[in-house]
Amino acid sequence: MKEGEENMEPVKVGLLGLGTVGGGTINLLQENAEEIMRRAGRGIEVIHACARDLNKPRICDTEGISLSTDPNEVVDNPDVDVILELIGGEGMARDVMLRAIENGKHIVTANKALIAKHGNEIFAAAEARGVIVAFEAAVAGGIPIIKGLREGLAANRIEWLAGIINGTGNFILTEMRDEDRDFADVLAEAQRLGYAEADPTFDVEGIDAAHKLAIMASIAFGMPLKFDRVYTEGITHVTRDDVTFAEELGYRIKHLGIARRTWNGIELRVHPTLIPERQLIANVDGVMNAVVVKGNMVGPTLYYGAGAGAEPTASAVVADLIDVVRALSCAPESRVPHLGVHPHALADESILAMDEVETAYYLRMQVVDRPGVLADLTRTFADLEISIEAVVQKEPPPGESLVTIILLTRTVQERQMVKAMEMLGKMDAIFGDVTRIRLEYLQ
Amino acid sequence: MKEGEENMEPVKVGLLGLGTVGGGTINLLQENAEEIMRRAGRGIEVIHACARDLNKPRICDTEGISLSTDPNEVVDNPDVDVILELIGGEGMARDVMLRAIENGKHIVTANKALIAKHGNEIFAAAEARGVIVAFEAAVAGGIPIIKGLREGLAANRIEWLAGIINGTGNFILTEMRDEDRDFADVLAEAQRLGYAEADPTFDVEGIDAAHKLAIMASIAFGMPLKFDRVYTEGITHVTRDDVTFAEELGYRIKHLGIARRTWNGIELRVHPTLIPERQLIANVDGVMNAVVVKGNMVGPTLYYGAGAGAEPTASAVVADLIDVVRALSCAPESRVPHLGVHPHALADESILAMDEVETAYYLRMQVVDRPGVLADLTRTFADLEISIEAVVQKEPPPGESLVTIILLTRTVQERQMVKAMEMLGKMDAIFGDVTRIRLEYLQ
Repeated sequence: MKEGEENMEPVKVGLLGLGTVGGGTINLLQENAEEIMRRAGRGIEVIHACARDLNKPRICDTEGISLSTDPNEVVDNPDVDVILELIGGEGMARDVMLRAIENGKHIVTANKALIAKHGNEIFAAAEARGVIVAFEAAVAGGIPIIKGLREGLAANRIEWLAGIINGTGNFILTEMRDEDRDFADVLAEAQRLGYAEADPTFDVEGIDAAHKLAIMASIAFGMPLKFDRVYTEGITHVTRDDVTFAEELGYRIKHLGIARRTWNGIELRVHPTLIPERQLIANVDGVMNAVVVKGNMVGPTLYYGAGAGAEPTASAVVADLIDVVRALSCAPESRVPHLGVHPHALADESILAMDEVETAYYLRMQVVDRPGVLADLTRTFADLEISIEAVVQKEPPPGESLVTIILLTRTVQERQMVKAMEMLGKMDAIFGDVTRIRLEYLQ
Repeated sequence: MKEGEENMEPVKVGLLGLGTVGGGTINLLQENAEEIMRRAGRGIEVIHACARDLNKPRICDTEGISLSTDPNEVVDNPDVDVILELIGGEGMARDVMLRAIENGKHIVTANKALIAKHGNEIFAAAEARGVIVAFEAAVAGGIPIIKGLREGLAANRIEWLAGIINGTGNFILTEMRDEDRDFADVLAEAQRLGYAEADPTFDVEGIDAAHKLAIMASIAFGMPLKFDRVYTEGITHVTRDDVTFAEELGYRIKHLGIARRTWNGIELRVHPTLIPERQLIANVDGVMNAVVVKGNMVGPTLYYGAGAGAEPTASAVVADLIDVVRALSCAPESRVPHLGVHPHALADESILAMDEVETAYYLRMQVVDRPGVLADLTRTFADLEISIEAVVQKEPPPGESLVTIILLTRTVQERQMVKAMEMLGKMDAIFGDVTRIRLEYLQ
């Protein structure tokens, strides 16, 4: 130990949850102890932890750590300075977190659902009590995107952000493209590999991405969390035909969370999206995450890395922990505010209704192979003042009478597109449902 | 103005230099004043500025700002809290910065040459005086890479980093590939467009990139700045043939700054590099910058954005300024240390000599079209225990007797490659010089 360190007590940590992330965090604190000491200026020691079942095998060594089954014992431990909330879920986690705040503990959490849905309440409690709630690990795993938005781009008015923020969804779409496989087939493999949960709803229906988008958008635009206003659409209806046709036209299909400031309100939406293949984010594959942020001064910036997993998530948890250690001696008012702007300066921005959102569209339909069908189709769009950017008609396979038509529209208000879909639904030359996927240039 | 702000005095800033970055910073502070106030919690006001020639036309409005031609008047102004050093260069800038530190001013600078070459002296002076020297804008313009390395990845032991950190060089290489043009031709255009200086040495010879690499490496590995130990090679010898052949083999040529921790020491090197085209950073084109950082826990992460220009650089300058405003009331020992680790914990890592560095290689040569030449060549490599990964022999154009051979080697110590080059130099079947460019998988 060198001069200046000897009399400095280590910071004492209470850890809630000894699962993948909790165990990964203990391992990281052990393996990188020297590096962390050099950076934080103090040691960091987990002194008390809890788990539902203390007899379960663990990925980490818990020797020297007091163990409880009741999280309240950890948050009530007077020796603990900082709580790491790595239980997940919303019920017990919320109660325990509020109790920890009441006890004057600083908190580091990886719990995106909790922050997205109860963040306003939690941050208000933390501000009243003068403690920090840090949540870098809640969004995009190991990528320091919360720090990037909240501090790195603090000089900018953020215009929009768009992110691949669910690794499972991106793995499925990447495999569908690279291996020409069906959604269900790849999902089953993702479950076997442990990338997808037994119940994959949160991932493939976009709920997980909506949690993360809500958090990023609040920081980007300096507004309270508005998770319940996020339009959320999953990837279950994307077919490998769509992936292939998109590719032929120079696009990739990615499941994006998008937040954009417009003159009429903030857009908050999660859905599959065609993006030009020359965009860097179109080339983010497999379980990796990436977020593009467009600032009015810096222009577009992109942040890429592992969005999940024990070690990347622990990397974000411990980065927050080091921040907390550094901030311990700072006055609460000089700390970085939870949502980037000071609480009194949060603006209650209005959220744009989905039918007012403007995007371009990819449409795929099967039509009867007879003269005049394409003319009728394009007339329908012209009547609704929807401009067509590209039309591709696929030769029918031998012996088939239906041809596939792909249309790319120019930017159009969602409301107009809903009308178009109704009119297409009435055309008897169109067989079955029309597939529509939004298309963004990200410029 | 809302409650809680009214009695808070704005932070008073002295600005050295009213050129592109200085003017851009004034414009940003005006245009985004409201956003900055919401984030910093205090207003920020430039009260005093200097420029060599006060009559020169400016990109910004200097009304209400005291103007001097002598920077010392600004740093001696007792009302100034923070100095923005945006003069550039090393002579006067160094003297003025040390004087500002002596006067107890915090400093924000975009001066990469100054930090790379005199950072150790400057940080020591700042630490002794208890002031901050912030330098996000010195590396990769608007990308918050210093913050990412110093804070976002603070929980990691960094294994390596590799960056496209000179926009001019990347613009030239991108144009050579996309438009099949020669180096000299594109350079002339870059100069016309204002991307390259009249004297392009700093950009095309890699010196600018070496400055930035030295800064990033010190933070990544927690060591003092070692600019004079960076191996530096420019892009002037890259031909469009090399760009084309690399492409045919599935690679792109990028001018990279690379820092890597090995068992024998730290590698610090700037040179043109073939990288697999499926790597995200291989697709970073034009004047854009990007840095890949591999942490032992988080794995690879990437940071992308504009590396130069008035507005992106001002974005980084003002982000630093907001950090300084937030840190004003914190005790010096709780601030983020200049190089990420606390000064007493800096390690004087040894730098690996270039002839001990291990990389793969791309080699291009012209040989006489006669039997046995390829056998002689491959025998030479085998004798030196250099493994060949791929060989491509190009048909000679009609009427020509020389054929072009491209070789990709497996990873080999630089020393062995130097020997191989000597032996190839003696082979009379080889016509002219052998081109060698390093190749990295970045894994």
